[in-house]
Amino acid sequence: MKTKHSEFRMTRTVQFHETDAAGIVHFSCFFRYMEEAEHAFWRSVGLSVAAPDSPYGWPRVAVSADFRHPLRFEDDVEIHLRIVAMTERSLKYACRISLGSTVVANLSMTTVCVTRSGPGQTMKAAALPAALRDRFEVAEHVAS
Amino acid sequence: MKTKHSEFRMTRTVQFHETDAAGIVHFSCFFRYMEEAEHAFWRSVGLSVAAPDSPYGWPRVAVSADFRHPLRFEDDVEIHLRIVAMTERSLKYACRISLGSTVVANLSMTTVCVTRSGPGQTMKAAALPAALRDRFEVAEHVAS
Amino acid sequence: MKTKHSEFRMTRTVQFHETDAAGIVHFSCFFRYMEEAEHAFWRSVGLSVAAPDSPYGWPRVAVSADFRHPLRFEDDVEIHLRIVAMTERSLKYACRISLGSTVVANLSMTTVCVTRSGPGQTMKAAALPAALRDRFEVAEHVAS
Amino acid sequence: MKTKHSEFRMTRTVQFHETDAAGIVHFSCFFRYMEEAEHAFWRSVGLSVAAPDSPYGWPRVAVSADFRHPLRFEDDVEIHLRIVAMTERSLKYACRISLGSTVVANLSMTTVCVTRSGPGQTMKAAALPAALRDRFEVAEHVAS
Repeated sequence: MKTKHSEFRMTRTVQFHETDAAGIVHFSCFFRYMEEAEHAFWRSVGLSVAAPDSPYGWPRVAVSADFRHPLRFEDDVEIHLRIVAMTERSLKYACRISLGSTVVANLSMTTVCVTRSGPGQTMKAAALPAALRDRFEVAEHVAS
Repeated sequence: MKTKHSEFRMTRTVQFHETDAAGIVHFSCFFRYMEEAEHAFWRSVGLSVAAPDSPYGWPRVAVSADFRHPLRFEDDVEIHLRIVAMTERSLKYACRISLGSTVVANLSMTTVCVTRSGPGQTMKAAALPAALRDRFEVAEHVAS
Repeated sequence: MKTKHSEFRMTRTVQFHETDAAGIVHFSCFFRYMEEAEHAFWRSVGLSVAAPDSPYGWPRVAVSADFRHPLRFEDDVEIHLRIVAMTERSLKYACRISLGSTVVANLSMTTVCVTRSGPGQTMKAAALPAALRDRFEVAEHVAS
Repeated sequence: MKTKHSEFRMTRTVQFHETDAAGIVHFSCFFRYMEEAEHAFWRSVGLSVAAPDSPYGWPRVAVSADFRHPLRFEDDVEIHLRIVAMTERSLKYACRISLGSTVVANLSMTTVCVTRSGPGQTMKAAALPAALRDRFEVAEHVAS
């Protein structure tokens, strides 16, 4: 029986091109940090959100973020991603970004499984693939 | 007596560098579209979020987005921004992104007024400047 | 007989998310400005670099930039793009970015025409399409 | 006597938000890869291009790139940066980006040392700081 995974942690150095003229990381980049952690999480269990011949796509249907503390160039942040819900066709993550013991931001993201024939084609909601259900599960204590 | 403004509309062509390998605009770019509309709104009433000698900064404290429809290269989107709340020190916007009659995404953003001595300095919450209170007001019918 | 086009001008406001912690536009964004002008140039003559059913792609083979002056938030820049060379399978542009009478940067970009069956497929060099040869020509005085 | 350094290597996974609708990494991102390697190089010798209280800035004066091979999502690229010239006030790098034994791109970047009082202030060319001259030197065999 395979171990299922419900969370993932990685660290990431803030890059200069992610900062803006206010001297801090632009808020849109926090969503890229969350996504980078999601994709690294999938890779860590042998999956990819965009494998070369995969019929699946993973558009986002909802995201949110609360920002508590600014990030600056060369900060080493921890990104902690947890699966907080799984439905027939969707996956919901909660994500905490921290700098040492300081919580920098709390984010969430709901993504749905779709199939499509090509980049320009209509997307159609689809059941989560079995390979994903085999490896992922909802985190037990979803309250942080 | 000055006219106060509570909403702003602009159109924007989707750029190639905003798309990703799924053939659609990366979700993080929708927040940049909302911010571009915010800054154009401010300019339209003679204000700037980052005037050269201004002591004020406008960090975001919360944002959210619901995505309903993908955007593709060269789509001409309409961005409709409305002020839905003002407090002593913060401003909250609702933003609808549309493609013709199709609603593409609904976003929200809460930004706070801060003062700081420089890019590396601690930010301190501050009352919204009078110039802003003179020109902006909450939209009457905030429900869309 | 159709008029052929060899140059294009557009203006563009510097966005906040394009600036970095040095308070100026990140140098990588200048290439995005040049590309935005290229795509607007194509649209102005009824073409698209990525029409939905087009078999063509336009990867870049070489780019360069000399930076003379920084750009800041809300600067209104002029982007002047000229075709300086056309071969059987490639197009070369020169691009000048200016702020009023100040030259901000000079860039160049060589792009090749390729065909491919899909995003993951091998790209194969191809002759420039006739529709493009009908509308574009090399600028007469390529020296600025 | 301190060891001086003239080159640096790092690996980097291609992120989804760096790809475009052609299914490959947008060419502007290659410059961000080169810059990330530059900043990691500096950190590896105890320096920072933007230390909190540093009076120095490092604007780019010229960059170039030749692209030989596309990069795709989740490719693990090697970035090899070498110092190929140092003048009184500038530093020039050559950068090779590879995927296994395949050369993906060759880039160059010249950056100058400036001083300025703040983000909005005029930049003034300055001599390279002694701390940098103590740690960096031109690579012996600059031809690759």
